[in-house]
Amino acid sequence: MLLLIPGPVQTRPEVKAAMAQDIAPWDRDFQKVYARIRERVVGVAGGTPGVHATLPIQGAGHFVTEAALRTFVAPGAKVLIPMNGAYAQRMARLAREAGRIVVELPLTDTRGATAADIMPALEADPSIGTVAMVYNETGSGIVNDAQGIGRALHAAGKRLVLDAVSAFGALPFPLDDHPECDVLVFTSGKCLEGMPGVGFAVARIDRAEACAGNAGSWSLDLSDVLAHAKRSGWGSIRFTPPVQTIAAFDVALDLYEAEGGQASRLARYRTNTGILYDGIVALGLKPYLERDQQGPVIVTIHQPSDPRFDLLAFVEALKHRGVLISNFYNTQAPTMRIGAIGAITPEDMRRAVAAIGAALEDVLPKAA
Amino acid sequence: MLLLIPGPVQTRPEVKAAMAQDIAPWDRDFQKVYARIRERVVGVAGGTPGVHATLPIQGAGHFVTEAALRTFVAPGAKVLIPMNGAYAQRMARLAREAGRIVVELPLTDTRGATAADIMPALEADPSIGTVAMVYNETGSGIVNDAQGIGRALHAAGKRLVLDAVSAFGALPFPLDDHPECDVLVFTSGKCLEGMPGVGFAVARIDRAEACAGNAGSWSLDLSDVLAHAKRSGWGSIRFTPPVQTIAAFDVALDLYEAEGGQASRLARYRTNTGILYDGIVALGLKPYLERDQQGPVIVTIHQPSDPRFDLLAFVEALKHRGVLISNFYNTQAPTMRIGAIGAITPEDMRRAVAAIGAALEDVLPKAA
Repeated sequence: MLLLIPGPVQTRPEVKAAMAQDIAPWDRDFQKVYARIRERVVGVAGGTPGVHATLPIQGAGHFVTEAALRTFVAPGAKVLIPMNGAYAQRMARLAREAGRIVVELPLTDTRGATAADIMPALEADPSIGTVAMVYNETGSGIVNDAQGIGRALHAAGKRLVLDAVSAFGALPFPLDDHPECDVLVFTSGKCLEGMPGVGFAVARIDRAEACAGNAGSWSLDLSDVLAHAKRSGWGSIRFTPPVQTIAAFDVALDLYEAEGGQASRLARYRTNTGILYDGIVALGLKPYLERDQQGPVIVTIHQPSDPRFDLLAFVEALKHRGVLISNFYNTQAPTMRIGAIGAITPEDMRRAVAAIGAALEDVLPKAA
Repeated sequence: MLLLIPGPVQTRPEVKAAMAQDIAPWDRDFQKVYARIRERVVGVAGGTPGVHATLPIQGAGHFVTEAALRTFVAPGAKVLIPMNGAYAQRMARLAREAGRIVVELPLTDTRGATAADIMPALEADPSIGTVAMVYNETGSGIVNDAQGIGRALHAAGKRLVLDAVSAFGALPFPLDDHPECDVLVFTSGKCLEGMPGVGFAVARIDRAEACAGNAGSWSLDLSDVLAHAKRSGWGSIRFTPPVQTIAAFDVALDLYEAEGGQASRLARYRTNTGILYDGIVALGLKPYLERDQQGPVIVTIHQPSDPRFDLLAFVEALKHRGVLISNFYNTQAPTMRIGAIGAITPEDMRRAVAAIGAALEDVLPKAA
């Protein structure tokens, strides 16, 4: 079965194998793995040890996103969120339920946000100190211009909280070039092609320490995660981690480096999405995004207008042909969502396009 | 290597094998696994489907404990916590940082709490509506009398939040006999002998619905987890779950039932702790607890008074002999903590006692 979903992604056999072992989380031999992962992640983030720290939060990506918002946006403070997708909406809900004041910037979900979208809203309300945004929006497949927005925020003296959950490792955001970024967050099971179960924040140490006391939740307090990490000499994760997922993530980082790191991974994903985009156009389907807005992580496609089309039936038909895609969608219009990340080769993607064509004929047979 | 730690525990090969696969969390075939696990867990909890619901929270046990406190204790409300161990202290911190008013009941960490300890504190302050407590305290190995306390709370019209993290599946607490219990929580990697990565609350549906709006955190809101579960027909877990851990937990439940369920598992753990307790006494070591206070999950032992003794050196010496125990302790006095839960047989435990004796001679050689 080929998993074409935007995470948890299809993984390599070496990653899966690392899951099948018992590990004592605080074992001295394993403490080296934590320290090594922290250092490697700061490297992938383009940060500097001593300036930036890798701070894990167990569980789903929403947890580490909420932790970032709670830690770096004070209770009752305002945060601007560009609203152009399902994950932006989720970020807004996480912030609002945590008692932060969300200022929503309405945008369409078919175009990535740029500094030109963001800055007027900040100028209109100088009491907004922080922008929180999604880098790659897996709702539709658009990419917000995190780097351009970050530079504009820096110039304006504003702060950035970046949800890079489905971008990190593929789309670059070098933290050393972005002092305005308090924190970015990602999870183990996306572009770094590990298993799901743990999120990571990469945060500025000075800001995390300055923000101690903000969180209002011990579980989701990145300042406390940092304090624990420092006390342990970086060789411990606060609270019991999903230790098999951590071991598998270390293997996934080996494979990431062996592939050539961020540039190579992005190139492979771009090739995958290109084959998929061209392939579905050739099949007569209509992509949800214009080509210049198409990101490298997920391709969404308008559902065929044929009234016989049923998404669940199509997903099951495609599954019978060995390809698994999402059985739901997160766009404003009804779509199909097909992931291009994970241990997926261009050859896999060509097979997938053929399977999509065949499954379409299964559910929408042409009149004889 | 034999893991003698109070979780994440040593698991059976079938459980480990279930970790080594890619799974799409929302796949229709896998939705059946969620529904089956929910039903089985309510059964293990001695609850009733329709009255009680299984509500997963990804991540460490602290997360599901915080979620239970946030959901079932209103912001600014008082909660009484009997303080007789490290996990009680953690529960108090979770509640306090979430903005709940913690009334601490100081107790010693060498004796389990009973209703006679708890009720006077509640009578002294009628504004306390809820008691939150640890069932099995893995700090020292004591067991609080959750059933007796629960009955007294019921008679007094008070509510109970039960941290059963290291008890559930072994120590009984039949929810149908305990209408005062809003929620109990546990994790996948303790007495049910699954892998770490997910916590579960088993909650009263009526109370979870009545408590909607309390949590002040979308991530840690059990009322919202319940609403999502109901919308999905119980076949979905809110936010991306650590899906391999879920698959392994389903296998662990198979093995639990095959062993004979709660009574058989408790009997094995009691046999394990008995062998360990007797064995360390025979080695001339002093248990931290009197025998009548010794629970079935973990045995703590005073560190030898010999000034040459060093806990880390001892743990490494024992590891070289094939047995891994905790390299830290959570009691008031310096101890060693040795777990008796997980896929550990009495024969394993006899081997472990022999290894402990040999490792002691390694680090404290007798004068010739």
